[in-house]
Amino acid sequence: MAQSLSGNIENMIGWTKVPLGQVNDLVVNGKSYDLPLATTEGTLVASVNRGCKATRLSGGVRVLVEEVGATRGPVFKVKNISEGRKLIEWAQSNFSQLKQAAAKTGEHIRLIDFKPAMAGKQVWLRFRFNTGEAMGMNMVTIATQKIVEVIDEKLKVKCVALSGNFCVDKKPSWLNLIEGRGKKVWAEALIKRIVVKEVLKTTPEKIIEVVRDKHWLGSIMSGSIGGNGHFANIVAALFLATGQDMAHVVDGSLGVTTAELENKDLYFSVYLPALMVGTVGGGTRLPSQQKALKMLGNPTAVELAGIIGGAVLVGELSLTAALSSGDLAKAHERLGRPR
Amino acid sequence: MAQSLSGNIENMIGWTKVPLGQVNDLVVNGKSYDLPLATTEGTLVASVNRGCKATRLSGGVRVLVEEVGATRGPVFKVKNISEGRKLIEWAQSNFSQLKQAAAKTGEHIRLIDFKPAMAGKQVWLRFRFNTGEAMGMNMVTIATQKIVEVIDEKLKVKCVALSGNFCVDKKPSWLNLIEGRGKKVWAEALIKRIVVKEVLKTTPEKIIEVVRDKHWLGSIMSGSIGGNGHFANIVAALFLATGQDMAHVVDGSLGVTTAELENKDLYFSVYLPALMVGTVGGGTRLPSQQKALKMLGNPTAVELAGIIGGAVLVGELSLTAALSSGDLAKAHERLGRPR
Amino acid sequence: MAQSLSGNIENMIGWTKVPLGQVNDLVVNGKSYDLPLATTEGTLVASVNRGCKATRLSGGVRVLVEEVGATRGPVFKVKNISEGRKLIEWAQSNFSQLKQAAAKTGEHIRLIDFKPAMAGKQVWLRFRFNTGEAMGMNMVTIATQKIVEVIDEKLKVKCVALSGNFCVDKKPSWLNLIEGRGKKVWAEALIKRIVVKEVLKTTPEKIIEVVRDKHWLGSIMSGSIGGNGHFANIVAALFLATGQDMAHVVDGSLGVTTAELENKDLYFSVYLPALMVGTVGGGTRLPSQQKALKMLGNPTAVELAGIIGGAVLVGELSLTAALSSGDLAKAHERLGRPR
Amino acid sequence: MAQSLSGNIENMIGWTKVPLGQVNDLVVNGKSYDLPLATTEGTLVASVNRGCKATRLSGGVRVLVEEVGATRGPVFKVKNISEGRKLIEWAQSNFSQLKQAAAKTGEHIRLIDFKPAMAGKQVWLRFRFNTGEAMGMNMVTIATQKIVEVIDEKLKVKCVALSGNFCVDKKPSWLNLIEGRGKKVWAEALIKRIVVKEVLKTTPEKIIEVVRDKHWLGSIMSGSIGGNGHFANIVAALFLATGQDMAHVVDGSLGVTTAELENKDLYFSVYLPALMVGTVGGGTRLPSQQKALKMLGNPTAVELAGIIGGAVLVGELSLTAALSSGDLAKAHERLGRPR
Repeated sequence: MAQSLSGNIENMIGWTKVPLGQVNDLVVNGKSYDLPLATTEGTLVASVNRGCKATRLSGGVRVLVEEVGATRGPVFKVKNISEGRKLIEWAQSNFSQLKQAAAKTGEHIRLIDFKPAMAGKQVWLRFRFNTGEAMGMNMVTIATQKIVEVIDEKLKVKCVALSGNFCVDKKPSWLNLIEGRGKKVWAEALIKRIVVKEVLKTTPEKIIEVVRDKHWLGSIMSGSIGGNGHFANIVAALFLATGQDMAHVVDGSLGVTTAELENKDLYFSVYLPALMVGTVGGGTRLPSQQKALKMLGNPTAVELAGIIGGAVLVGELSLTAALSSGDLAKAHERLGRPR
Repeated sequence: MAQSLSGNIENMIGWTKVPLGQVNDLVVNGKSYDLPLATTEGTLVASVNRGCKATRLSGGVRVLVEEVGATRGPVFKVKNISEGRKLIEWAQSNFSQLKQAAAKTGEHIRLIDFKPAMAGKQVWLRFRFNTGEAMGMNMVTIATQKIVEVIDEKLKVKCVALSGNFCVDKKPSWLNLIEGRGKKVWAEALIKRIVVKEVLKTTPEKIIEVVRDKHWLGSIMSGSIGGNGHFANIVAALFLATGQDMAHVVDGSLGVTTAELENKDLYFSVYLPALMVGTVGGGTRLPSQQKALKMLGNPTAVELAGIIGGAVLVGELSLTAALSSGDLAKAHERLGRPR
Repeated sequence: MAQSLSGNIENMIGWTKVPLGQVNDLVVNGKSYDLPLATTEGTLVASVNRGCKATRLSGGVRVLVEEVGATRGPVFKVKNISEGRKLIEWAQSNFSQLKQAAAKTGEHIRLIDFKPAMAGKQVWLRFRFNTGEAMGMNMVTIATQKIVEVIDEKLKVKCVALSGNFCVDKKPSWLNLIEGRGKKVWAEALIKRIVVKEVLKTTPEKIIEVVRDKHWLGSIMSGSIGGNGHFANIVAALFLATGQDMAHVVDGSLGVTTAELENKDLYFSVYLPALMVGTVGGGTRLPSQQKALKMLGNPTAVELAGIIGGAVLVGELSLTAALSSGDLAKAHERLGRPR
Repeated sequence: MAQSLSGNIENMIGWTKVPLGQVNDLVVNGKSYDLPLATTEGTLVASVNRGCKATRLSGGVRVLVEEVGATRGPVFKVKNISEGRKLIEWAQSNFSQLKQAAAKTGEHIRLIDFKPAMAGKQVWLRFRFNTGEAMGMNMVTIATQKIVEVIDEKLKVKCVALSGNFCVDKKPSWLNLIEGRGKKVWAEALIKRIVVKEVLKTTPEKIIEVVRDKHWLGSIMSGSIGGNGHFANIVAALFLATGQDMAHVVDGSLGVTTAELENKDLYFSVYLPALMVGTVGGGTRLPSQQKALKMLGNPTAVELAGIIGGAVLVGELSLTAALSSGDLAKAHERLGRPR
């Protein structure tokens, strides 16, 4: 058994099984998807389903995806700041050489550019890569190793750590919110006033008030990165179902929700700057995860990112609505405890 | 099938299965544990195992756990700042009344205290609860609803949202790092120099350099909350195996690593301020998750938090060692790809 | 000359002279003040004056001040986390002993409480003091030195640095926004619609839109601490005029602005969590600074904090209005360049 | 009187006078400077002087300055995310048009590039300008106004606020630490062990310990932006003396200190990412400020930034040394109170 799972696990002793729920007909850019959500939090599937319905009745969700790329930010040790500047300038002048070194490590990887930083004798170079349909951290690590070897050979500059926390991988950081990582996704919907009332049992004004007082002001008062309600719940459920790396929920759940009146209807949007997702490699190879991807029509990585953005929007919409109508506790009493 | 999973999922269509690996003999406070790790990231189990061995040969990991409690921070709307101050003062003066209201919602919940904040007409009260062996967010939501009703009844002050992002639940925030949430855990180990060399293939000095340049300086340069290497990987794998809420990986993976020389040996520590974990309720009820908890000796929630702290320490130690010796890419080439 | 300035400067060679402007009739809690603003930024005095007029015509500014106290957070080195916990528990159990040690260093200083933190062998204790009418950092440093000596004597625990950046003094930090430092100030005003139109040349709706899109969303998108437009301008001008420590502009300018409709009028508020101000000691002793304080009626430190809060509100209101009506560039063209 | 100060102040009633101290012979890149420091904090001049001596005896301070440029980040309102992307793409495709519009507003201003961001219907474009010898915010505001008019004319996209807090001006933000603003400055020195002992009364090891436990770990534990001891003190004193905008102390004091052993000597560095300074315009026109600039040899803006970087290094070195030897309180008792 363990044999066939090489690349995913060592010393395997069995399987952890998480219940999988289904949400029907999320409409994203005019296309309909059934969502697989793996979770143990009662109410989540029902809540996403409700948000789905509300947007579906209003024309669906529109999504934009921007490919940023996976990043690795090794930290180097230089002799002084002048040598540090030389390292950065050398990497800029000899970029094609670094690009070639990276390209040799695999046919699906391509170095795009890098962003430098320096403090004292420490220099960070945040390399950004296109990794095709894969989430790509493995590829990126191996390619960065080659780049680091070229730098060592040419400049005799030592790499202290292949990852220097200027990537930033699986830690919450403003760098990722500001620069993006993996895929950046924006999703929006215009929900008709009557739908807000009938499906979400609230009003656009009340939803807007919660976005203002909780998602924005509450986030500012508590020193949060971003400003949203519960992106992490939906991201975690879809990541788990589709075989993504669960530690990437940390970066993947970063983001900002906005809401406003458009005429008398509700304009609602979410922005997710750092979705590290793939449709090949890693956990996506496993049987139940393959099935979940199939359920989504075997999407490309970009399409999958868009679906996740759409799902986050409807889940965020439904929770925000429940908070605005005072129904959160009731829902959790009903669906969050075993009957 | 769905019937028996009420409280965990709606519209269930099957199971997501994640491979479970085993790490042997993590020694925490003198007791030995076999760890269940659910992950699809090759090398993780092997790496944690290596860190485990290194600490075991050095006397094991010492752990301290502090029960902070689960929190909910509703946001209220007041007429002006003077009324806002009155609300806060009233809640302080009538705390026993709020405590009783909370206690009525369940026998395992106890309101401990609250922390207030105000900006303009918005007031947040971050209520902190003891929730026994449960992670407790469901209980806490229901209890806070009651508290909010008392406030509404007595003061005619309206609650805008039962969660006002001053909790902070499932979002990365400085408030949680500074105040703690759920359980705070500190873990430390003194790894003998010879063990660092033979088991971890590096030196204490090199590990200390990576902690300095990556975990601390790299985190500062990238605007990260906390300063660590990859807490999220170990937290996610143990949370998944033991039935915790996967969106809590966001808060649970916050924290700080430290390292320094002690005589010629390596002192290594991790601090996790916001572990939201439980051993009853939620996903812990499920069969494979129950088995994982049994494998750990059916720990209390506090003991489980301590085990997670110990596991994070050994996983962090092993990754930091691999980075310091330049072995990260090699390990991922060997174990991170299917053979 | 230098002799008489001992305590303020060494090796004195002259004076730096900054122009002082006057703003008339800021009404705070029903009392009228003429404000001294020392600045070299053209338009600032005129802008604050305009905001002043707008609130004066609407009943003035209401202000609440909370005395938090000055803080020092030394960092100690312990042998292990268990000894660290003992240090924290000892300080809690023997608090009166620490309080007495602090009290012996001066008649105007009183230790209130402390907030602990620990990571590995490092322990921080953030001591909070009442310092009467003084800003108090000097007193607090000397008192903390005594506390540290008691701890060293009783527990043999070494202090690494008397300030451990857990104070946090003169650096931007979430800890200060969340906990407060010095004085916390809230200020609010209800500006009549007609006044917004005639004096501020805009509408409540437009001002609210700028607060939303710039002060809140823009601050979130850029990883700012707090959410405001230009608190620093007004804080700096008043600090300079009244002899405050100019490096405290960093903490003193932290804060959050809110705005909303109240009926058809504009409710506008500011929150400043960390105003380190005094009316005795430091630069307040100097002649021109004494004159400025006299102009304000020789206020207490609490009253001064309230005046600053009121001035920040009117300055913030005027800038936000200018942005909302597209007049910022015009004003700077007219008043920001020499004619 | 007021006449001649048009552009700096309105409704002038007099001058605020701050004592000016002198520090001799700061050696930066081989050149010697006498520093004018305007402050009311006793010990500051003496402390900077001590750090100056320590570096002077060790070969002086080496400094690198990078011209980043002044920035303005207006926020625009678009109809939907698709229109938002079009706005960004249009600005990229028609960059030369924007550049020309900016150039027409003055001969000393040049648009370099811009950085976009989007959340829902809000789009921010952070324009970056070269402003010659001026700090330049006035010029930048006026130029951005023109750019905004072009966008409005061509695309019919409305600007909500000319500054959208994506600049970020005078607020503490991670964006500025990560991207830089104004001038980025790195400064470093190698202080001989014997000099650390004789001049600073401590050891390299003790200084390194304070940098680690206070500047880095303490800053992480308190949610600070950056990691330093007291950059703000030196920045404020030099800004005040040389006529800079005092509200820019907020951004200008951001930064990171590093220290490490080099052989047995002390390598010490500071990094300041966002120094908004100029040598023409604003407060630099005033008499005492002109004198201070003359004292520095009438430097260019870049040279002034380098001097400030050097001064921050020596001031930071001296404070860190005082903390490490337990002398902070003593120094403040001696110099921080009037005799």
